[in-house]
Amino acid sequence: MAPNPQINTKRMVAALTRMVRQPSVSATGQGIPECAALTRDILEENGIGARLLSAGDVAPLVYGEIDMGRPRTVLFYNHYDVQPAEPLDLWEHPPFGGVVSDGKVYGRGATDDKGELAARIEAVRTLADAGKLGCNVKFAVEGNEENGSVGMSRYLNKYKGLLGCDGIVWEFGYVNDADVPIVGLGMKGMLYATLGARGPGRDIHSGMAPIVQSPAWRLVSALASLAGPDGRIKIPDWYEGAQPLTPREREMLEAMPLDADSLKKDMGITEFVLGQDEAGARQDLAEVATCNIAGIWSGHTGEGTKTVLPSVATAKLDLRLVPGMDPQAQAGRLRRHLDKSGFADVSMQVEHGQRGIRASPSHPFVRAVIRAADAAFGSHLLNIMYPETGPIWQFSTILGAPCVLVGGSHVHSRMHSPNEFARIDLLEKTARAIIHVLGTFGTDSPQEADSV
Amino acid sequence: MAPNPQINTKRMVAALTRMVRQPSVSATGQGIPECAALTRDILEENGIGARLLSAGDVAPLVYGEIDMGRPRTVLFYNHYDVQPAEPLDLWEHPPFGGVVSDGKVYGRGATDDKGELAARIEAVRTLADAGKLGCNVKFAVEGNEENGSVGMSRYLNKYKGLLGCDGIVWEFGYVNDADVPIVGLGMKGMLYATLGARGPGRDIHSGMAPIVQSPAWRLVSALASLAGPDGRIKIPDWYEGAQPLTPREREMLEAMPLDADSLKKDMGITEFVLGQDEAGARQDLAEVATCNIAGIWSGHTGEGTKTVLPSVATAKLDLRLVPGMDPQAQAGRLRRHLDKSGFADVSMQVEHGQRGIRASPSHPFVRAVIRAADAAFGSHLLNIMYPETGPIWQFSTILGAPCVLVGGSHVHSRMHSPNEFARIDLLEKTARAIIHVLGTFGTDSPQEADSV
Repeated sequence: MAPNPQINTKRMVAALTRMVRQPSVSATGQGIPECAALTRDILEENGIGARLLSAGDVAPLVYGEIDMGRPRTVLFYNHYDVQPAEPLDLWEHPPFGGVVSDGKVYGRGATDDKGELAARIEAVRTLADAGKLGCNVKFAVEGNEENGSVGMSRYLNKYKGLLGCDGIVWEFGYVNDADVPIVGLGMKGMLYATLGARGPGRDIHSGMAPIVQSPAWRLVSALASLAGPDGRIKIPDWYEGAQPLTPREREMLEAMPLDADSLKKDMGITEFVLGQDEAGARQDLAEVATCNIAGIWSGHTGEGTKTVLPSVATAKLDLRLVPGMDPQAQAGRLRRHLDKSGFADVSMQVEHGQRGIRASPSHPFVRAVIRAADAAFGSHLLNIMYPETGPIWQFSTILGAPCVLVGGSHVHSRMHSPNEFARIDLLEKTARAIIHVLGTFGTDSPQEADSV
Repeated sequence: MAPNPQINTKRMVAALTRMVRQPSVSATGQGIPECAALTRDILEENGIGARLLSAGDVAPLVYGEIDMGRPRTVLFYNHYDVQPAEPLDLWEHPPFGGVVSDGKVYGRGATDDKGELAARIEAVRTLADAGKLGCNVKFAVEGNEENGSVGMSRYLNKYKGLLGCDGIVWEFGYVNDADVPIVGLGMKGMLYATLGARGPGRDIHSGMAPIVQSPAWRLVSALASLAGPDGRIKIPDWYEGAQPLTPREREMLEAMPLDADSLKKDMGITEFVLGQDEAGARQDLAEVATCNIAGIWSGHTGEGTKTVLPSVATAKLDLRLVPGMDPQAQAGRLRRHLDKSGFADVSMQVEHGQRGIRASPSHPFVRAVIRAADAAFGSHLLNIMYPETGPIWQFSTILGAPCVLVGGSHVHSRMHSPNEFARIDLLEKTARAIIHVLGTFGTDSPQEADSV
């Protein structure tokens, strides 16, 4: 194979800092239309025909394509929205400053997901300029991923012809501490629900506590019926229908290293919650469905010692699901468990849901991605199941193509946390890996590629 | 007895609106020194010699006195600080506006406690101007009552000679729906504690929930070990040492009416927490020690569906105590219960504590107050135990005099809540009742007054 063309790092970093400097917080709506337009402009400037698609009252989907008339098509799925930047006082650089320092780009979205997108655009541009694109390329960049990808399945159903492809490169992929890319074959699902309890019509004097129901106590007790102090779910039928790992998947899971010490240090903990060893942690990340309290509040949350009996209490729960669990069915189980436990008065609002899925490691597209990772990074690891969630099930099911996670997101790049950053050297390697995928996937003989 | 002199309502309301317009939030410190100075000025303007006392790093105590050289002295205890005004969006008038409308003064502190103070100052002024003060008068107006009266016992110990008296009129007294004053003989104590749990060193991606301890789950489970969904305390030794009611106190309790329907309507509830009837509610308000969640928070409490595993979780608890319970001892029981229940890692910070106390209904000062209430309002009720808390135990114990609660705080005046108000007609009646106390208590024959 001829040596691959060289990417332009300066151009890639410039595109990324422009994107980071445009806030795009889907939780609040801040900057979403502006960032959609900016993403379209950057695709266009790099020779990728782009436009905004709409599907009702959700953030626009940025669509981009280069049609080379090849037999195979690769779709890049990314998102231009980001998590909220709060708590702001913990940031060392401005969250929307796009500061470049020390070989890194700092800011909310620098890795998740604007960094990955910038690397992919640069790879496509470089390969197209050199006339070496071996397949057709499509981009689907959504604006609501951090908000549960509400509306994404509407886009997929409405535009499934336009988005048709033979393989999907997911929005991100991890690189471990040793700079080895982790090719991911699956992601967890999620049910996001808000629980609420009501007490008196307004916050009242807490002297009334002997005779007035406290919504805080109702909510705390309702939550305690769902999970123990370790957060493990106690709902008896929660795992019914969950797909167990195949023997081959389990083998692959066991082959996947996990640097427990490094992970603990990064997260600021000394032990895993159940004292798991590395094998146990790896297994639980893949197989355990969780009920996380993402937020809880009631009463006086400011300074001082106010003495009120609150009027309302609220908790936001993200419940990660494993493949085989349907969010709607799990919501029904959650509701029934609350009712049976005496908390019929505790309200439950389903905010959004996603199914989890795992792709087959023997699919030709998966194999092409693995070869590309080896070529660009020198080696690879496989992770059959990421603990994160994205609309991977809809993409795979509606478009009928496998999703693979490959990219340059360093595991400690503080995604969703203050001081998120992207390492520029990893963005470069990611771009090179994408160049390998796009240079080889389309040119394989179909027979050879499809055989295992 | 000669008819009592007439109070000047306009002057009393003007003093009150001046005080309400000066914010004085002890929880944050806002306006505390300014309000102390204003209170001193208003006392002085009304002929009551006044000055600020200090006792270390706490809000100044405003001391006022008129020494008539009489054998008996009455001390008025009040406070110039107020609860925080939040939530601000629920106020119909500005919380620090002091708006007078419809026979009421609106604002934070209008009743609790600036209204009571204004009525007392007006009573003393009126009686002094008419040359009819039958006893010496002292005022002790503190600036930290809504913050647990931290430092008040230091003031009492430091100035116990200066503050010496024969009877204490407490900072407030209730008036029921039928405008009958409720003379109060006791108040509950309180332990205020902050519980905290720690998880990862920063908020992290909730995908890590299978292996990382959530502080929200630790805190929720720790709380659930303290009380049930109805808020009733489950700590086995919690009531050890509590003083049961005497048969006479129980009789008086049973004679005390409670308008359940009106109370429920005001608080916006349809049932009491355990379905209590009126007798049960009255009894529980007097006898039940509570663990109220005044505030709880962790993780993302803003808009949208953020998916973080929080770094910290915090709860503020106000635990009301009955007489015989010592806050320090109860704090020890709380700590031991948490430890024994597996929550040694959950931190506990004692913010402040107060003991509860009940005064004897046969004391001559108590009897003088009851007679005054009858004279000014036409009748009275007795409440042996208020569910609220104040530093009544220290006052009674250190100054060696009984505390009685009598005043014009209408039970539905929204103390500690948005839209607090004071009814001007009740302030007038309160001033008249105080005029009766001060005109008669000092002139009783000591023998007659002390006999029962």
